[in-house]
Amino acid sequence: MGVTFTLHKGGETGPRAGRLATPHGCVETPTFMPVGTQASVKACSSEDLLEHKVTMVLANTYHLYLRPGHRRIERLGGLHRFMNWPKPVLTDSGGYQVYSLGELRKISEEGVLFQSHLDGSEHLFTPEKVVEVQQAFGSDIAMVLDECTPYPATYEEAREGMERTLRWAKRSRDACGEDGELALFGIVQGGVYPDLRKACAEGLMEIGFPGFAVGGLGVGEEKNECLSVLEWMAERLPAASPRYLMGMGTPEDLVAAVARGMDMFDCVLPTRNGRNGTLFTHSGRLRIKNSRYADDLRPIDPDCDCYTCRNYTRAYLRHLFLAKELLVYRLTSIHNLYFYQVLMERIREAIETDTFPEFSRAFLRRFNASGEEGLGREMAQEDRGFSNQSEKSSKKIQV
Amino acid sequence: MGVTFTLHKGGETGPRAGRLATPHGCVETPTFMPVGTQASVKACSSEDLLEHKVTMVLANTYHLYLRPGHRRIERLGGLHRFMNWPKPVLTDSGGYQVYSLGELRKISEEGVLFQSHLDGSEHLFTPEKVVEVQQAFGSDIAMVLDECTPYPATYEEAREGMERTLRWAKRSRDACGEDGELALFGIVQGGVYPDLRKACAEGLMEIGFPGFAVGGLGVGEEKNECLSVLEWMAERLPAASPRYLMGMGTPEDLVAAVARGMDMFDCVLPTRNGRNGTLFTHSGRLRIKNSRYADDLRPIDPDCDCYTCRNYTRAYLRHLFLAKELLVYRLTSIHNLYFYQVLMERIREAIETDTFPEFSRAFLRRFNASGEEGLGREMAQEDRGFSNQSEKSSKKIQV
Repeated sequence: MGVTFTLHKGGETGPRAGRLATPHGCVETPTFMPVGTQASVKACSSEDLLEHKVTMVLANTYHLYLRPGHRRIERLGGLHRFMNWPKPVLTDSGGYQVYSLGELRKISEEGVLFQSHLDGSEHLFTPEKVVEVQQAFGSDIAMVLDECTPYPATYEEAREGMERTLRWAKRSRDACGEDGELALFGIVQGGVYPDLRKACAEGLMEIGFPGFAVGGLGVGEEKNECLSVLEWMAERLPAASPRYLMGMGTPEDLVAAVARGMDMFDCVLPTRNGRNGTLFTHSGRLRIKNSRYADDLRPIDPDCDCYTCRNYTRAYLRHLFLAKELLVYRLTSIHNLYFYQVLMERIREAIETDTFPEFSRAFLRRFNASGEEGLGREMAQEDRGFSNQSEKSSKKIQV
Repeated sequence: MGVTFTLHKGGETGPRAGRLATPHGCVETPTFMPVGTQASVKACSSEDLLEHKVTMVLANTYHLYLRPGHRRIERLGGLHRFMNWPKPVLTDSGGYQVYSLGELRKISEEGVLFQSHLDGSEHLFTPEKVVEVQQAFGSDIAMVLDECTPYPATYEEAREGMERTLRWAKRSRDACGEDGELALFGIVQGGVYPDLRKACAEGLMEIGFPGFAVGGLGVGEEKNECLSVLEWMAERLPAASPRYLMGMGTPEDLVAAVARGMDMFDCVLPTRNGRNGTLFTHSGRLRIKNSRYADDLRPIDPDCDCYTCRNYTRAYLRHLFLAKELLVYRLTSIHNLYFYQVLMERIREAIETDTFPEFSRAFLRRFNASGEEGLGREMAQEDRGFSNQSEKSSKKIQV
């Protein structure tokens, strides 16, 4: 396998700290991966990411397969060289994007037949094809093609989707062949049904994967349903393998999921919120367009030392945002991404020093206080709408 | 006066090299100022500008007066602090933007009554008001309110506009009062009529300004008409004062205007072209969306050492451009701005070493050759449409 995982704190359940070694370097876990849908974390250069503690990014197989194409990326030296990113890259399987296509896709045992959101052309993603595409990218971690269970789904629907996900996982694993570099992760489906989730986890362990993802969450289920799934997973998945919660990630989500034994995260939230002018500070969310910041000479977060906070005031950022100046999207994205990386760093420190519960309580108290920014609870609701989506690249559909 | 100009090569006519000292540092001339319409050179941070040899920027009085307002900028510590730009800033008078408003403005002897393109609110720019606004900004160089002569214009129309420009220039000069920091430049109008241009220059010299701008060019006149105006100006304007050609600037324009004794330039062309995917290289213009670059691993210009060329390939930039990824607008803008700054640096070196004619011929030969990129002549035509406009901030009007 192309990756090795060493857990140095924690076990099956509860918060864990570890290290994931990949062909492009090591990543300390728990870790958050910014989303570079089209081989670009929106508005940020690779230097911006490196300077703001990002150690691994996610890219979308669906988008890059359609444009510029996996064979082109391969010819150009692989995804890392293409996007000038020297550190690890995880690519998803395209399963979630294809699932989001709705009417534009048709699922069969063979795979998923779908129409490109760019030009309507028809394509078939099979488990084997999706492995081949990710091999061409040169991804450090690849994901199996899965069938994302919608919410709500009956037990029968969830069972069928989960069983197909397992059959596809087996085919994906077989398709890897002799490729020793590609680390392929399995994905647990099964909706909100405990026995289906557990059966899926066990099926995947039997096939054998170097890591396991939890999919099909953040699609509309209740918070407590979501957390229950994570708890069942912690009990079933092997302690020694990395666990990746796909596509979810408000700061509150991250803290809750780390508490339940998750190691890896990705979400469009920090960058998308940045572009929408919702900024994260340690004392809560801040809407930069609010008139209260018009004459505010402070940085976004006085406790932050990101490029934006070292150089620009709230007053100026607000002006840029109202004037729709391109610079603001970079500055706010950098800030939000750094907030996430610093949060993960503090989470790791707390786990190492056996103070995670205290850290978690203190962080959430300050972050959700209706204090200075006073947007804690209100905005957390809004964020729900953003979870588990890849960055939008078309107005036609949400992919 | 807030600025001093030292000419150390050349005189009345022909290319000149000098140094402009301002309250925010020195600028070597001939110099090119990127346009920061709304207190932001589109898509670039101040660090990007500093790292790419930019020494002075232009900001637009019209836009900043409307949003965020000159009193707000003053409260926030002035324009330099507001936009985190430590080097000199020149602000225009808003005259050209108001002129572009067409139906939305009414000119009287008092000043220009206009409607905001943002919200339709009514405002009056008088010569005195425009000085006051620029004083509030803390501009290193301010421009007088002028009446831009349209093209074509009859002799009578051009004469009336020129005479009003002179009367307004006197009022502007008087309005400066005791402000020793504000260097106010006069603007020569008079259309394409030699005696009007000369009379305007002489009238401005009589009032007394530390620098002179040539306005009303790049508005539709023929190339040879434009160059004739510059030649008349070189003969009339005092050798010891800086001369600023407003709003024009293809690379060919810059070389031609330097040859005719101009010292300062601004234009939206490098940044706007960057955002449109037209990139400058020393061997000509390059349209990054062209399919020929799809597999091209070279930087935009192998002779360039800007951030973009040091880190990204044509193939990747093309992908970002087609995918409308925000990152590309920064990367292409940085490249084009640096191309301009390097061009000005080479122009200055050539003047210092008495080799400007040879440099100019060699530069134009290579730049306009229908060589590798083969877009020289064709694109130069397209550029004409871009000259002399401030960066568009609204679809409603071109301001």
